[in-house]
Amino acid sequence: MTRVTLLAGGVGGAKMAEGFAALPDVDLTIIGNVADDEEFHGLWVSPDIDTMLYTLSGRINREQGWGLADEGRRALDMLTDLGEDTWMFLGDRDFGLHIYRTQRLKRGDRPSDVTADIARHFGITARLLLPTDDRVQTRVRTLDGWLTFQEYFVRERCAPDVLELRHDGINNARMTGEAAEAIAGADLIVIAPSNPLVSIRPILDIPGIRPALQAAQAPVIGVSPLIAGKVVKGPADKMMTTLGLRADALGVAEFYGNLLDHFVIDTADGTLAAQIAALGIAPHMADILMPDATAKARLAQDVLAVFQAAQAESAA
Amino acid sequence: MTRVTLLAGGVGGAKMAEGFAALPDVDLTIIGNVADDEEFHGLWVSPDIDTMLYTLSGRINREQGWGLADEGRRALDMLTDLGEDTWMFLGDRDFGLHIYRTQRLKRGDRPSDVTADIARHFGITARLLLPTDDRVQTRVRTLDGWLTFQEYFVRERCAPDVLELRHDGINNARMTGEAAEAIAGADLIVIAPSNPLVSIRPILDIPGIRPALQAAQAPVIGVSPLIAGKVVKGPADKMMTTLGLRADALGVAEFYGNLLDHFVIDTADGTLAAQIAALGIAPHMADILMPDATAKARLAQDVLAVFQAAQAESAA
Repeated sequence: MTRVTLLAGGVGGAKMAEGFAALPDVDLTIIGNVADDEEFHGLWVSPDIDTMLYTLSGRINREQGWGLADEGRRALDMLTDLGEDTWMFLGDRDFGLHIYRTQRLKRGDRPSDVTADIARHFGITARLLLPTDDRVQTRVRTLDGWLTFQEYFVRERCAPDVLELRHDGINNARMTGEAAEAIAGADLIVIAPSNPLVSIRPILDIPGIRPALQAAQAPVIGVSPLIAGKVVKGPADKMMTTLGLRADALGVAEFYGNLLDHFVIDTADGTLAAQIAALGIAPHMADILMPDATAKARLAQDVLAVFQAAQAESAA
Repeated sequence: MTRVTLLAGGVGGAKMAEGFAALPDVDLTIIGNVADDEEFHGLWVSPDIDTMLYTLSGRINREQGWGLADEGRRALDMLTDLGEDTWMFLGDRDFGLHIYRTQRLKRGDRPSDVTADIARHFGITARLLLPTDDRVQTRVRTLDGWLTFQEYFVRERCAPDVLELRHDGINNARMTGEAAEAIAGADLIVIAPSNPLVSIRPILDIPGIRPALQAAQAPVIGVSPLIAGKVVKGPADKMMTTLGLRADALGVAEFYGNLLDHFVIDTADGTLAAQIAALGIAPHMADILMPDATAKARLAQDVLAVFQAAQAESAA
C-alpha cells in the first residue's frame, strides 16, 4: 500500500485524484485548494473542494467536468426573479450542499470536519483534507482593477489579462494538523496537473506547508498541467504569460523549483527534458492527457512507476 | 376605492386575500402572520407569508394550495444525502426565496422591507405587511411535550392533541409602523377565515395591535373559518376542541369577542346567528367555501356588501 498525498485543485486536480483513487494499492489523501472559495447569496461556496467531492463520488457532470449530474436551476431562477446577480451558476443540488456547509460553519464547525463529513456521506474513501481552516481567497488584478477569483474565472470567463495575483489571508492562515500529518506520513507526494498559480500556490504558500514538504521523507513528483505550452482546461498558460513566466512545462518546473524531485511531462514536451533536468528535477515522459477513466488511472500508474523506479534505484 | 386591511394567515387567509385582490374597487393591505416562521438548515422560512406571496403572485401550486408550481426537490435530496432531517418539504424554488430572505436578514434588513421587496419582485400590487419585525414563534404543547409549530403541523401532521399554545417572543414584540397605519387608515378591517388560534391570535396579541383595532374608525368584519363545525383545511376545529373552545362559528365569534362588529358565517350555520347576535356581533350569512377564483371574489364581494350596507345604514 503506497500512501500518496496529492496536492490538487480544479478539474485537472480532480482528474488526477480520480486516477489515484482507482489504483488498488494506493491509500490516497488529497490536500485541496480553498482559495477559490467565495460567498454567494449568503452561502459559502468551495468550488475546488466541491469539484473534488463531486468527482470522487461519481456525481460529477462528466460532460462539463464540474458541477453535478442531473442539476436544476430552479433556486437560481428564483434568485434571478428576486433581482440577485446570478452570473455564478449554482445548481439546485449544489445549493443543497452550500446550505449544508454554511449551516455547519455558522455553528462553528471546522471547515475540515465539514468537508470530511460531506465526503463520508458521499461514500468517498479517499481522505479529502483542507490545507487550512482559515480563510484564504485569491484576488486577481486586471486592467479594470481587482476581482475575486470567481468574478475573473466565471463572470469574466478568464478573458482579462491577469496582471497580479494575491491570496488574501494566506500569511495568517494556519496549516491544519491533518495536512501536516498527510505530508509527513506520505510515501509519495504528488503535485497534480492543476493551475500552479491559483490552485497549487495558495496551498504551498500557507505558512508551514512548504517547509513540511521539504522536510518530508517522501519524494515530490509534479505532473505538468501544460502540454506543448497549452493548458488542457483553464487559464494557466495565459496567466503564466501575462505574469512573466514561461508558459510551458519548463516554466512550471521553474515555478515549483527545488520543491520537486521528479516532474512528469507530456511526451510532446520531450525537448524540454534536458532543461528540466538542469534544474535538478528528474524529468519523466508520459501521456498526461486524461480524457477518460482509463487515461486517469494510467497516468496515476505512470506516476507511481516513477516513484517505484526511484525507490528501487535508491535501494540498489 | 375602499381601503381594506386584512388580517390573514395560512391557506384560508391567502384565499381571502386573493378574493379582495380581484375586486376592482379595493385598495388591499394584508397584515400577515409570522408566528409560523422557523429556521431550517440555517435558512429563515416564513410559511404563512410565503403562501401569501405565492398565492397573490399566481405562483402557487393550485392543487395543493401551498408551495410553488413546478417545484423540484434536488436541494432537499442533497440535504437528505448529507444526513439532514428533511421532513419539512422545501422545494428548489422555495430554497431560492429562503436563501434570499436569510441573506437580507443577515445584512440587518428589516423583515418588513424584505417582504415588501419580494412582493414587488413578484409583481404583487397589494401591500403585504408584517405585524412585527421581531421574532414571534408559536409553540405547541402535546402529550410528548412542546413542539415548534412546523413540527406539529408538518412533521406530526397535526395528529397530536394540542394541550396548550404559546407564542414565544410576543410580549416583547413591537408592532410595525406600517401595520399601525394600515389599521388606523383602513375603511374596513377584515379578519380572514384563518385559524383563530395560530394564524390570527399571534397577530392580535402583539402589543398595540388589539388597541389599534379597537381605536380604528373602520368596522371589523370577521369571516368564519368553520362551516358546520368543520374546518375547510387545517387543524382549527380539533385544536379549538382540545383547548376547551366551541369548535364552530359561534366558538370563533366568542373567541374574537368585542373585536368584531360583524361576523360572516356560512349559510349552513344559520342556527348560530341568534347566539352570535347576542354577543353584540352582527351575523351575516354567505357561502364561505372558496374552491376557485370566482368563489374567492364572490366572498370578498359579500364581505364588502356587509360593509357597504352598514355604512348606508349609519348614514341614514
